Amino acid sequence: MTVSEFDLIEKYFKPLSPSGEPAFSLSNDAAIFEPQTGINLVYTMDTLVAGVHFFENDNPELVARKALRVNLSDLAAMASEPKGYLLSLALPSDMSDREGWVAKFAEGLKQDQEHFGLKLWGGDTVSTGGPTTISITAIGESDPTVAAIRSGAQTGDDIYVSGTLGDSAAGLAVINDNLDKKAFSFLVDRYYLPQPRINLAKEVAPHVTSIMDISDGLISDVSHICRQSAVGATIEAKKIPVSEAFGNLLATKAEYSDLCLHGGDDYELLFTANAKSDQFLSDVSGESSVKLTKIGKITDDREVKLLNDEGIEIDTKDKGFRHF
Amino acid sequence: MTVSEFDLIEKYFKPLSPSGEPAFSLSNDAAIFEPQTGINLVYTMDTLVAGVHFFENDNPELVARKALRVNLSDLAAMASEPKGYLLSLALPSDMSDREGWVAKFAEGLKQDQEHFGLKLWGGDTVSTGGPTTISITAIGESDPTVAAIRSGAQTGDDIYVSGTLGDSAAGLAVINDNLDKKAFSFLVDRYYLPQPRINLAKEVAPHVTSIMDISDGLISDVSHICRQSAVGATIEAKKIPVSEAFGNLLATKAEYSDLCLHGGDDYELLFTANAKSDQFLSDVSGESSVKLTKIGKITDDREVKLLNDEGIEIDTKDKGFRHF
Repeated sequence: MTVSEFDLIEKYFKPLSPSGEPAFSLSNDAAIFEPQTGINLVYTMDTLVAGVHFFENDNPELVARKALRVNLSDLAAMASEPKGYLLSLALPSDMSDREGWVAKFAEGLKQDQEHFGLKLWGGDTVSTGGPTTISITAIGESDPTVAAIRSGAQTGDDIYVSGTLGDSAAGLAVINDNLDKKAFSFLVDRYYLPQPRINLAKEVAPHVTSIMDISDGLISDVSHICRQSAVGATIEAKKIPVSEAFGNLLATKAEYSDLCLHGGDDYELLFTANAKSDQFLSDVSGESSVKLTKIGKITDDREVKLLNDEGIEIDTKDKGFRHF
Repeated sequence: MTVSEFDLIEKYFKPLSPSGEPAFSLSNDAAIFEPQTGINLVYTMDTLVAGVHFFENDNPELVARKALRVNLSDLAAMASEPKGYLLSLALPSDMSDREGWVAKFAEGLKQDQEHFGLKLWGGDTVSTGGPTTISITAIGESDPTVAAIRSGAQTGDDIYVSGTLGDSAAGLAVINDNLDKKAFSFLVDRYYLPQPRINLAKEVAPHVTSIMDISDGLISDVSHICRQSAVGATIEAKKIPVSEAFGNLLATKAEYSDLCLHGGDDYELLFTANAKSDQFLSDVSGESSVKLTKIGKITDDREVKLLNDEGIEIDTKDKGFRHF
């Protein structure tokens, strides 16, 4: 390895950074940002570690885009618009083709910067004796009059999710189990490339009582909302939206059915809303390419219950469900 | 290991986070911050990897404080006041006493939060197959009328540094060479606990033409300013301020003399100023416990020259000096 961290920054990361404020092409000790009057700022930080959150030999472009998108999904859950991000990249000291990897990684960042309209504001590149480790801090702007919180769910509210659940976890299972990746390419793509629901979240946020993105799995994340709102929930298993591809996978691998409950990494929206928002949310769902589905109700009994077709409770506690 | 990342956050990191805005005790997907009108925001991100930037068996309190302080030193260099930070902590999956380590680490953060007046706004805790890896994004506020930049140095400006140089690198050498840590405790302490010059930087920034903190070593960082300002510099070796402890170490280990030039991790201020700021900076130095020292002049020849007592150039190019 003859290329220094300084060279990598100069060659690959500087072009991702604006020449004026806030980043001055990464030339200062830090970025300077002049906030707009009357706008709130939203901050989130997520870390991806090779061997834990991605595979060291994954396509670096996709790794970069996923690292950015898991943060953008957090910004979406706060109904905010992405503005910038800081990137910390720890690269293994024994990575033989570090420059090639970084070049592709930066290309992935570039694509998603353009797609989502944000810029690189700063960061740090270091070497590590361990696996590639990527931390991103993303910064967004939000409307102070829209409260995107987890603590506002009320008894009687409907529980909604966007899109379909379990796809990403099923995609990972396809990879891990050496199933036919081409046949299940939809699922594998959903694993590699989350779709942060930024526009959808901004549209629904003024009409919801609580909202978050699903990253830990549906049941776990419904529990987060319930705990913070001091309520409970019933979820009807048959209403949980799954993709055709997920259904096809279950036809051969029925044991994966729980992935739509506990798989995680869905990066879909989970929110609760009062009946008065019903028509609005139904209209949004009708007009959007990403459907909204009512999957249950908020209750006052401080428990999260999953019900089968007969309305009988299914035990989820032994599958990663954290009781509260 | 029976304690989950969720438990660690709940028990150790939540108490470091404010219950209201911006972090809501870490209960949301992200922090929401309402910026003050007329104030700029400053962002920086630094990563510390065990085995590279600290030792895995170092006192976790000191590791935490150093991780925070290297970021605060970047904020200082931008003449900004620390407000908050996001923390990403990747913990080795084989760390047998993870909870004990995290408890001490959080205690270190708490001490420095109180000392520097900032709060934990968010972050991420993950496991890694590699070494402990800490990324911090720090956020500060700055006065938009004060330009703390690297690109404003002018021919004829004086070059100043704060405090003494080489101490931290010498402290690391004492540890690595198994010298008497007690005898050289001043140096070892300077290695473990940088002193970000926040107040000093705010005081001098309106009177300087360029400013940064010294993290890569004096010669390297003077070169950064020169490159960005399109100027050169002469530095008089004998004027570089060193501590008594550093002098004592050189008495037995003369080969360490270069550490005040190239050692890095000084976290002192480096700045340039016009002669008209002379009296002001002299007064500041007289009143401060951290002295300011003029070490040379900005020139127009686009080279950084280190001069010996006779005014003859000393070659620094073979010691990590990056020509530009």
